[in-house]
Amino acid sequence: MSATAESVQNIQAYMAELGQQARAAGRAMARAGSDAKNQALTAMADTIDARAAQLVEENAKDMAAGRERGLDAALLDRLELTPERIAAMADGLRQIAALPDPVGAIDDLRSRPSGIQVGKMRVPLGVIGIIYESRPNVTADAAGLCLKSGNATILRGGSEAIHSNRAIAECIRSGLDAAGLPKDAVQVVNTTDREAVGHLITMTGEVDVIVPRGGKGLIERISRDASVPVIKHLDGVCHVYIDEAADLDKALAVAFNAKTQRYGTCNTMETLLVAESVAAQVLPPLAERFTDAGVELRGCEASRRLVPAMTAATDEDWGAEYLAPVLAVRVVADLDAAMEHINAWSSGHTESIVTQDWSRAQRFLREVDSSSVMVNASTRFADGFEYGLGAEIGISTDKLHARGPVGLEGLTSQKWIVLGDGHVRG
Amino acid sequence: MSATAESVQNIQAYMAELGQQARAAGRAMARAGSDAKNQALTAMADTIDARAAQLVEENAKDMAAGRERGLDAALLDRLELTPERIAAMADGLRQIAALPDPVGAIDDLRSRPSGIQVGKMRVPLGVIGIIYESRPNVTADAAGLCLKSGNATILRGGSEAIHSNRAIAECIRSGLDAAGLPKDAVQVVNTTDREAVGHLITMTGEVDVIVPRGGKGLIERISRDASVPVIKHLDGVCHVYIDEAADLDKALAVAFNAKTQRYGTCNTMETLLVAESVAAQVLPPLAERFTDAGVELRGCEASRRLVPAMTAATDEDWGAEYLAPVLAVRVVADLDAAMEHINAWSSGHTESIVTQDWSRAQRFLREVDSSSVMVNASTRFADGFEYGLGAEIGISTDKLHARGPVGLEGLTSQKWIVLGDGHVRG
Repeated sequence: MSATAESVQNIQAYMAELGQQARAAGRAMARAGSDAKNQALTAMADTIDARAAQLVEENAKDMAAGRERGLDAALLDRLELTPERIAAMADGLRQIAALPDPVGAIDDLRSRPSGIQVGKMRVPLGVIGIIYESRPNVTADAAGLCLKSGNATILRGGSEAIHSNRAIAECIRSGLDAAGLPKDAVQVVNTTDREAVGHLITMTGEVDVIVPRGGKGLIERISRDASVPVIKHLDGVCHVYIDEAADLDKALAVAFNAKTQRYGTCNTMETLLVAESVAAQVLPPLAERFTDAGVELRGCEASRRLVPAMTAATDEDWGAEYLAPVLAVRVVADLDAAMEHINAWSSGHTESIVTQDWSRAQRFLREVDSSSVMVNASTRFADGFEYGLGAEIGISTDKLHARGPVGLEGLTSQKWIVLGDGHVRG
Repeated sequence: MSATAESVQNIQAYMAELGQQARAAGRAMARAGSDAKNQALTAMADTIDARAAQLVEENAKDMAAGRERGLDAALLDRLELTPERIAAMADGLRQIAALPDPVGAIDDLRSRPSGIQVGKMRVPLGVIGIIYESRPNVTADAAGLCLKSGNATILRGGSEAIHSNRAIAECIRSGLDAAGLPKDAVQVVNTTDREAVGHLITMTGEVDVIVPRGGKGLIERISRDASVPVIKHLDGVCHVYIDEAADLDKALAVAFNAKTQRYGTCNTMETLLVAESVAAQVLPPLAERFTDAGVELRGCEASRRLVPAMTAATDEDWGAEYLAPVLAVRVVADLDAAMEHINAWSSGHTESIVTQDWSRAQRFLREVDSSSVMVNASTRFADGFEYGLGAEIGISTDKLHARGPVGLEGLTSQKWIVLGDGHVRG
């Protein structure tokens, strides 16, 4: 990166240059062997460890500027790089090095009646643009995942983290260099000008996919304005449905865990649905546990008849992603009514049924149209690590290409390969 | 469809109604079993056969209007429904009935250390909008493929085929009805007003994906204006590279077939690349065969020194999709120069290398970034039927989601399923 934030005059020309450099580096990355990629990841991790003090120093500049700008405590916490967080960032890169390389795998190679063999080869997407807010560790995570999957990356972090992100990017680029890979495989947009994002998301010739990571506002804005395809995660309005045939102990355990294991995550349950016939057994003891844990309950009329302490839920509650110790509760007639509520209100992230009834479990699995559908398990399992992906770049609530937790495979595509020996079409 | 073309006053409200009906029908289709879907496909085929005379009659109205509007002979030919074409359309639906049902298949179900089992279930995309020109048989093909993959479809054919498309759609809907499936699983937009397309491609709540089929102009326009994701095929600027280690007989056979087996298809070779060291052996005999077949050759300087009868190629030729008996020819230094030319000029559709050299074949397979990459085989094989998909809705030159020939699987997605027995996250 020759330009600095201060010297970037013509943003469009600067972004076009980043794009062309990324495209060229992407071609080299697609050819790179697993050894070189893993060597780069390990070198990056070692450099981050070695430069920990310097990273803390650069981060201190962002923290000072953030305090001056009056960022709130939660944002400042996300922005901070402590020695522990820096070590965790380096370890994350080593973990990515240990994952299997998805690139080049050939699936379903079959002989056809014409004599040709036809199969699919897994290949990188090309150039991935990552747009994110606050957390500087995303710089290393995202770069590592894109690199391992053979892609080039253009990273656009928040202006509040620019010093931290630049310093981390330099560790990453020196790791690429040490492994003989092109440094431009990872580039950080070196200007805080918002115009840069507008170019990045419309450079269809240079960028193959955009992954936005941040609040709903950011993601909606990018999805609306992008002409480059977007892999996005909007919100998580997740449901647990306690069926009439539920095992009550499992129901209590799953529902309690889905809400309280962590409040601020997208796979946390936000609405609990309970079958009418078991509501009187389930709701009072569950409400007691929730209330003891400090969770505010907002219920439908039928729920409030059983647990009068609940406040009244409105339609707004059925669509709410609280990300907080608040839970909407609704009594429904049966499985069909539960699925109707989910179809109407869910964000398509994760839903779970608690039931011992085989047929109803099968119907729920088949008919609920969300990225993760579960039986007798907490929605909190919807996560790349829990699913065995090793790491995730995000959780997609889209249907095309990648759905649910997106790991290395979600950053690749498959092309067809045809092997012949002089075969022609008759 | 209650509205007729004449009675559609408020296009936006009409399209929104189609969308909501499609969404509801799509939910029912996602639940439908293979038996019901196959029964519907067979009933559609039988109805089309039984109503062949009526279809010819309706088609005659479109043909007469087309002649009056001065459509050219090629367009009129594509528009015409003969008894043979009607029988082929019915047979196409029976073939789709015979294909395996992709919906509900579960892949990679694995136990995780937490005790849950995690896998992926194949599910329909939901509602698919098809926008196409001229050929009325697309109405049956596209509806059949979308139906078998559990989706609802909104079909928007060309205004020149409106009578034919409506008549075919009635056969399809009566087939759905006969199998107890919702008729609104297949709807034809019953107005020729262009405004309808504008609504269809921006109804992100009701439509999950748009598949445009037609000329490059149509597809570029739709891709530019759509906010619904598009699975698209732009153009096919396909290459054959004859390597220095090529078997000359195979080279002649593959190159000749790739150009001449059919001129008007997207997988036809448009540019031939030949390694310098074998150009003198390859080009003169190949030029003779092409010239005998009536193919016009446009060559680079080095080619023209070997075959002086060639006209001079310009940069425009390297980017041209002729769809005609014209071929661009270029002599290149080696494999790297060939791949550089392909990277610069290819549309990312299909490329083939002719070589006996193992390492160069492997490099070409790995490094060429097109939807189909071949060794010692004619580009004309890039086709859903030849690849064993049974049928195709189109050939995608995109990288995300579906790449190359798109069959039933390309009209589906995978959601995650999690099977537990009261499991919670620790």
